[in-house]
Amino acid sequence: MKIWEKGIAVDKKIEQFTVGRDRELDGYLARFDVEASQAQATMLASVGLISEEENQQLQQGLTELAAQIEAGTFTIDENFEDVHSKIEFYLTEKFGDAGKKIHTARSRNDQVLTAIQLFLKDYTEQAAAQIMALVDVLLQKAETHQADLMPGYTHFQAAMPSSFGLWFSAYAEHLLLDLALLEAAHTVADQNPLGSGAGFGSSFPIDRQQTTQQMGFSNLAVSSVGAQMLRGKTEKTVAFALAGVAATLSKLAYDLVLYNSQDLAFVELPAAFTTGSSIMPHKKNPDVFELVRARCNALQGLPTTIMLATNNLPSGYHRDFQILKEILFEPMMQFLDILDILLFALPQLKIKPDLLNQAKYDGIFSVENINQLIQAGVPFREAYVQVGQAVDQGRYVPHREFHTTHLGSVHNLGLAEIREKVARVQQQSRVLLKR
Amino acid sequence: MKIWEKGIAVDKKIEQFTVGRDRELDGYLARFDVEASQAQATMLASVGLISEEENQQLQQGLTELAAQIEAGTFTIDENFEDVHSKIEFYLTEKFGDAGKKIHTARSRNDQVLTAIQLFLKDYTEQAAAQIMALVDVLLQKAETHQADLMPGYTHFQAAMPSSFGLWFSAYAEHLLLDLALLEAAHTVADQNPLGSGAGFGSSFPIDRQQTTQQMGFSNLAVSSVGAQMLRGKTEKTVAFALAGVAATLSKLAYDLVLYNSQDLAFVELPAAFTTGSSIMPHKKNPDVFELVRARCNALQGLPTTIMLATNNLPSGYHRDFQILKEILFEPMMQFLDILDILLFALPQLKIKPDLLNQAKYDGIFSVENINQLIQAGVPFREAYVQVGQAVDQGRYVPHREFHTTHLGSVHNLGLAEIREKVARVQQQSRVLLKR
Amino acid sequence: MKIWEKGIAVDKKIEQFTVGRDRELDGYLARFDVEASQAQATMLASVGLISEEENQQLQQGLTELAAQIEAGTFTIDENFEDVHSKIEFYLTEKFGDAGKKIHTARSRNDQVLTAIQLFLKDYTEQAAAQIMALVDVLLQKAETHQADLMPGYTHFQAAMPSSFGLWFSAYAEHLLLDLALLEAAHTVADQNPLGSGAGFGSSFPIDRQQTTQQMGFSNLAVSSVGAQMLRGKTEKTVAFALAGVAATLSKLAYDLVLYNSQDLAFVELPAAFTTGSSIMPHKKNPDVFELVRARCNALQGLPTTIMLATNNLPSGYHRDFQILKEILFEPMMQFLDILDILLFALPQLKIKPDLLNQAKYDGIFSVENINQLIQAGVPFREAYVQVGQAVDQGRYVPHREFHTTHLGSVHNLGLAEIREKVARVQQQSRVLLKR
Amino acid sequence: MKIWEKGIAVDKKIEQFTVGRDRELDGYLARFDVEASQAQATMLASVGLISEEENQQLQQGLTELAAQIEAGTFTIDENFEDVHSKIEFYLTEKFGDAGKKIHTARSRNDQVLTAIQLFLKDYTEQAAAQIMALVDVLLQKAETHQADLMPGYTHFQAAMPSSFGLWFSAYAEHLLLDLALLEAAHTVADQNPLGSGAGFGSSFPIDRQQTTQQMGFSNLAVSSVGAQMLRGKTEKTVAFALAGVAATLSKLAYDLVLYNSQDLAFVELPAAFTTGSSIMPHKKNPDVFELVRARCNALQGLPTTIMLATNNLPSGYHRDFQILKEILFEPMMQFLDILDILLFALPQLKIKPDLLNQAKYDGIFSVENINQLIQAGVPFREAYVQVGQAVDQGRYVPHREFHTTHLGSVHNLGLAEIREKVARVQQQSRVLLKR
Repeated sequence: MKIWEKGIAVDKKIEQFTVGRDRELDGYLARFDVEASQAQATMLASVGLISEEENQQLQQGLTELAAQIEAGTFTIDENFEDVHSKIEFYLTEKFGDAGKKIHTARSRNDQVLTAIQLFLKDYTEQAAAQIMALVDVLLQKAETHQADLMPGYTHFQAAMPSSFGLWFSAYAEHLLLDLALLEAAHTVADQNPLGSGAGFGSSFPIDRQQTTQQMGFSNLAVSSVGAQMLRGKTEKTVAFALAGVAATLSKLAYDLVLYNSQDLAFVELPAAFTTGSSIMPHKKNPDVFELVRARCNALQGLPTTIMLATNNLPSGYHRDFQILKEILFEPMMQFLDILDILLFALPQLKIKPDLLNQAKYDGIFSVENINQLIQAGVPFREAYVQVGQAVDQGRYVPHREFHTTHLGSVHNLGLAEIREKVARVQQQSRVLLKR
Repeated sequence: MKIWEKGIAVDKKIEQFTVGRDRELDGYLARFDVEASQAQATMLASVGLISEEENQQLQQGLTELAAQIEAGTFTIDENFEDVHSKIEFYLTEKFGDAGKKIHTARSRNDQVLTAIQLFLKDYTEQAAAQIMALVDVLLQKAETHQADLMPGYTHFQAAMPSSFGLWFSAYAEHLLLDLALLEAAHTVADQNPLGSGAGFGSSFPIDRQQTTQQMGFSNLAVSSVGAQMLRGKTEKTVAFALAGVAATLSKLAYDLVLYNSQDLAFVELPAAFTTGSSIMPHKKNPDVFELVRARCNALQGLPTTIMLATNNLPSGYHRDFQILKEILFEPMMQFLDILDILLFALPQLKIKPDLLNQAKYDGIFSVENINQLIQAGVPFREAYVQVGQAVDQGRYVPHREFHTTHLGSVHNLGLAEIREKVARVQQQSRVLLKR
Repeated sequence: MKIWEKGIAVDKKIEQFTVGRDRELDGYLARFDVEASQAQATMLASVGLISEEENQQLQQGLTELAAQIEAGTFTIDENFEDVHSKIEFYLTEKFGDAGKKIHTARSRNDQVLTAIQLFLKDYTEQAAAQIMALVDVLLQKAETHQADLMPGYTHFQAAMPSSFGLWFSAYAEHLLLDLALLEAAHTVADQNPLGSGAGFGSSFPIDRQQTTQQMGFSNLAVSSVGAQMLRGKTEKTVAFALAGVAATLSKLAYDLVLYNSQDLAFVELPAAFTTGSSIMPHKKNPDVFELVRARCNALQGLPTTIMLATNNLPSGYHRDFQILKEILFEPMMQFLDILDILLFALPQLKIKPDLLNQAKYDGIFSVENINQLIQAGVPFREAYVQVGQAVDQGRYVPHREFHTTHLGSVHNLGLAEIREKVARVQQQSRVLLKR
Repeated sequence: MKIWEKGIAVDKKIEQFTVGRDRELDGYLARFDVEASQAQATMLASVGLISEEENQQLQQGLTELAAQIEAGTFTIDENFEDVHSKIEFYLTEKFGDAGKKIHTARSRNDQVLTAIQLFLKDYTEQAAAQIMALVDVLLQKAETHQADLMPGYTHFQAAMPSSFGLWFSAYAEHLLLDLALLEAAHTVADQNPLGSGAGFGSSFPIDRQQTTQQMGFSNLAVSSVGAQMLRGKTEKTVAFALAGVAATLSKLAYDLVLYNSQDLAFVELPAAFTTGSSIMPHKKNPDVFELVRARCNALQGLPTTIMLATNNLPSGYHRDFQILKEILFEPMMQFLDILDILLFALPQLKIKPDLLNQAKYDGIFSVENINQLIQAGVPFREAYVQVGQAVDQGRYVPHREFHTTHLGSVHNLGLAEIREKVARVQQQSRVLLKR
């Protein structure tokens, strides 16, 4: 059988299977486990479960660990199955009994969960800040290119005159809207489960409101049963939020891939973001944007994978939850990379001028021709027929001069109104509070 | 070929395929299309695109339609491909030119989208109100059964003493959390797209802020390109929200199916919610809760279906969006049915008393035995070994008397604190404002 | 509470919830339940569990029902919760005791499952036959248009000369490949579960091989536990197969939507399959193909929904399985409609001639220019540089005369070889055997 | 902006983003790229595009590379973006012009695709062989435990007498059925795309049937356009197949997790596969089986992720396809690990004897009591009532002696018939041919 042939002992094989990639992935949690342990120790001292001296020792050890993590020198070697064992070992080796007492009134379940909650809360704030930076870039581009017209497409066909101002501001408004899902994810992450133990509380006289406050959580997950049920739910809600933003970014990338084609040729992508073909010297392929699109599309599969892994399990902890780290953490980081790439690429995007002067876009002014007739008193239905006949009989002359006035139209982008929406979100949003 | 054989004319076949189930599904939109048309007409009169008299006529006609819809006498017969044609036809037949002018500065795209936004906004409010009613039921049950202990399970194994108070309040807190996603859906639905036309605005001097206010939208979807991009996004965000709540309800149903089994026998389900077996007289199957679970699980597939149908389409309208009504509307109604069923069933749920007195649950008190030793000064690790040995050697006597004090534990459910959370959400939540 | 307000009695509400749309959906199963009942009665008589006379009566009654179903006069009225009750009632009312005995050694579980297996087996055969008809249409079109060149696109950019022959035959080969998944679905459906009872068999001396043979199943699902586990699995495998074909058809529709755009303008879609715009007289929108694409995309969500509804349930029947009919049956019918539409539309597709003579496609011959140099002895790398420089300096003259010889290339489509593959599949495939 | 702050140069950042994890993942493809290059060189010599001497050199170089790969000494260092560049570099550095010529009439597109097809074809064969090994283990266990009765559950409730023989053989039959999907994946992978170039063929006089034969493909993907369309489709079909098997294994693991609970206590899991609780000395958690379940559930999300990444792209290559390696390759390996774990664990599974003697299972014999009455001439309906009343009135005495005779029942497992099915599959299955 395979596992023998490879010369791997059975126990080793099973250990690999159960530990999985925890050591590596727990790197993301280290800082937060330290933070939670600091709050735990302080509270244990407050309620008298450990002495003030023991607390001092624990705080000192945890501060040292925090410094190691910050400096990048903290590692989880093979002796430890996860970050939590490593941290306890460090404290115990250093302070003996005091180190052992950090786990008083705490179970591995609520400990892991607390670190994940803190990590995901922090992550949603970080992602939100980057998204707001992108909103800002898009609004600046909208302003710069407010006079640059482009044909507006529907059904993959040129339909009506549009503009880059409308296009850039559209994505700005949508990313702003996407924050609503990130806000929801933050709300779910912003519940403190510490003290819920293995999911049923304990008979220790702990003060859960104190730890809530010290860790900066807005809410206590009161019911210990409910606290444990956060496992999987917070991860899924973060996945929903990423899927939401990813869909917007995928669409933006799709547009740019099309706009870069020779047929449309609306934009010039920054050179560093395209590649030539190995056999076709005439092509400039939009590889980076295709990869942005593909990665954003794959990110949209995350909620399904998390649902499948966690659905139809009754309440209470199951080991199944462990694999959520494997499923979620790296895509989360990839998502930040995508934001970085776009923050760098979009300011460099060049717009082709005078697109609408091409004869092939004559047709898109027919709506204007119709509107002219309407404003001259011809009923819509009749105006439509007249222009249609002109098109059919080759008599059609596009009415290229047009002027729009309403908010959100070519000549009145309403950027000030959009910036007001941005400001309102910035004031009200909890996910953005800290940054 | 099939379509001939069946004697269906080709045009008919194609019409069936393109119209799909629109006539039926548009029943949900009728009320909202009337509402939007009222705002549209009023605004057209304000800016002088129609006369005040024309507006009067249109308002009268729309009020009649609203009454028909309210009374259930409004129908969309086969002559019309959708609700929008029917409403325009009614107005035109009645008022001639005035009827035709309702479509001034409006395209089918922004018209349909506006009705969908209003419908989904209304729906999220309605669903939120029902969820809050369920939260209330759960908190009442938690209060009633705060002294009813039950074994808490992890890994499908009895682990520690828990209680029905903790269990009921856990689901109350989770449904409350699930409102965060519904709030996000509401935010996305609460954007007015009217006036964005086919997605690129128009040269008519319309006032989009006026319609925003009249229809009760909190925000204008400013960029016309962005307004059109709401199509699919609002539906998907509602699907995320339903998937979120559905996961919670599925877990609740799963728990009850297990708790109803002879092995656990924690609860007695209301008789109307179970069925006997056709060949096994000893069984009482929890069919209704299995169906709640199954339907809630299927609802979690909605986001994927919507993503697959709308992903990788560039900005601008595509006919693809039409099928979202087919995908989403009936599951939305089914979801309300599930809430109804639970609102009726849960108050009737009977709890079995004295569950923890069964010898098979002796083991779950071992944590208490350990804690006793700890509180008597024995270090945790040693206490654990002592109790473990007692278990192995058959000397173990469960320490059944235990008392918990911390928030969210068996003897301190923190129901007041949970009710405070409920009140806070009720104050802050926009999705709940109206109800 | 809602369910009162609406004036619907609770029992009624629960009945609606549990019966769901069974009466309607069971229409698909009626024929197959009759078929299975015929085999069951014959076998019961063979092993002596009913008399030959009773069998005669049952066969007569079932033949009558089969005729009603064929004639479309069979209905399941509100007194019956499903098709199975209706059929038994008919037999019992007519023949008294004999009717009651049809259910001997059978449970509702294996009865429903058998009808579903027969239905899905029949369906996969029917779908496969339609797909083969489409393969044939595509190969005919490939032959007709083998000389019609088109630009081949990669990365949404014109890349190299291609042809409609290559394009049509590509989809023919892919649909042929998609039969592999349909074959798998057929294999899973082609297992007889009858006699497995509620999933654990019975002590009746039935002959399961006889019913297997009579119903035309290739295999007996031997283990009664395993037989019951088919529930959900066959449905899911059919969903995989539909998702596979749907992906191919979605891509075909996507191509045609693009090829219909003014920018590419490779094809002219049949008039009945496009619609004009209500405000833009210059547009001809490819609505039918957009709806084909959208419906095919939504179909790809089926496996996820089925997985979510059935995953994480232990072996043995759960009521959850009932909702699979709701999830699967109508999309299955919609899929046949899509095939019908394409079988009608594709023969009418018109190809635009001389596409490659347009100056904008000069660049795509650069690979030929390079190949010319290579064949004249210039190493690839150098030839690439020479042609690249010519392009950059405006000296490039496309080498439009090219001739390909290898199988599957522009001038050697290999249609005979593809037809051989088709013939091979037709011979070997069980899913196609009957048609 | 982030990417500056981190001190990573922009080009580096973009390179990381575009190369992704290709270097690492291409390790799986190295062997197959060498194999395809050997066939390519041989064919090029056959048709005179390279000299026989050049072919000799290339074969020698490729044999060296194959040896390095076999020995584990082959690496892809940072100078190369993928395995294909590395291999070409090796040949070119060693043999100059001959090395450069290996890429004649080949594009990176068909090269990568060919290696992936070979890899996935090989993988499906390897996975199928492991699955058959597991089928064998399950049939052996069924035989060993054919007399070990267990209660059969439906709706999470004890329903009727069943046996471990039925349970083990159920999973054996289902894994056998799951091979049908793996067979479909193999069929799709078993198409040779080499020579299709960038997806439109070339004007080189290559012999694609020769390479098909030399690489051991059963079929040529004839149309060059169709050949390129395999990208994504083969990956997705493999994902369907893994999802299918994974669902079966997840259910098996779920059953075992339940059977290990104190409430059911049907089995004893091998000690190495369970872990104790850190705070509850009475528990033995089935962690390994929970992780098998969770990983199998997550695997079922693969098709969705692949669909989302590849759906709604028109025909022709897009860079998006590159990320499929990231999505699929590691889960594929994880799946083999799961099979390994089960192949090791299942033979060690211990069954608890005499389960049905427990009083709590009295009820499940009621069906037998009814059948007794029926066989004594009492009509079913009356027998059901009699037994039901006995149960209600406490007079019920379970009829524990029962004997079943039909195939697939407790006392006639039909293992010989199942083994015949296995033999039939082994003869007919192409996915199993080689192993």
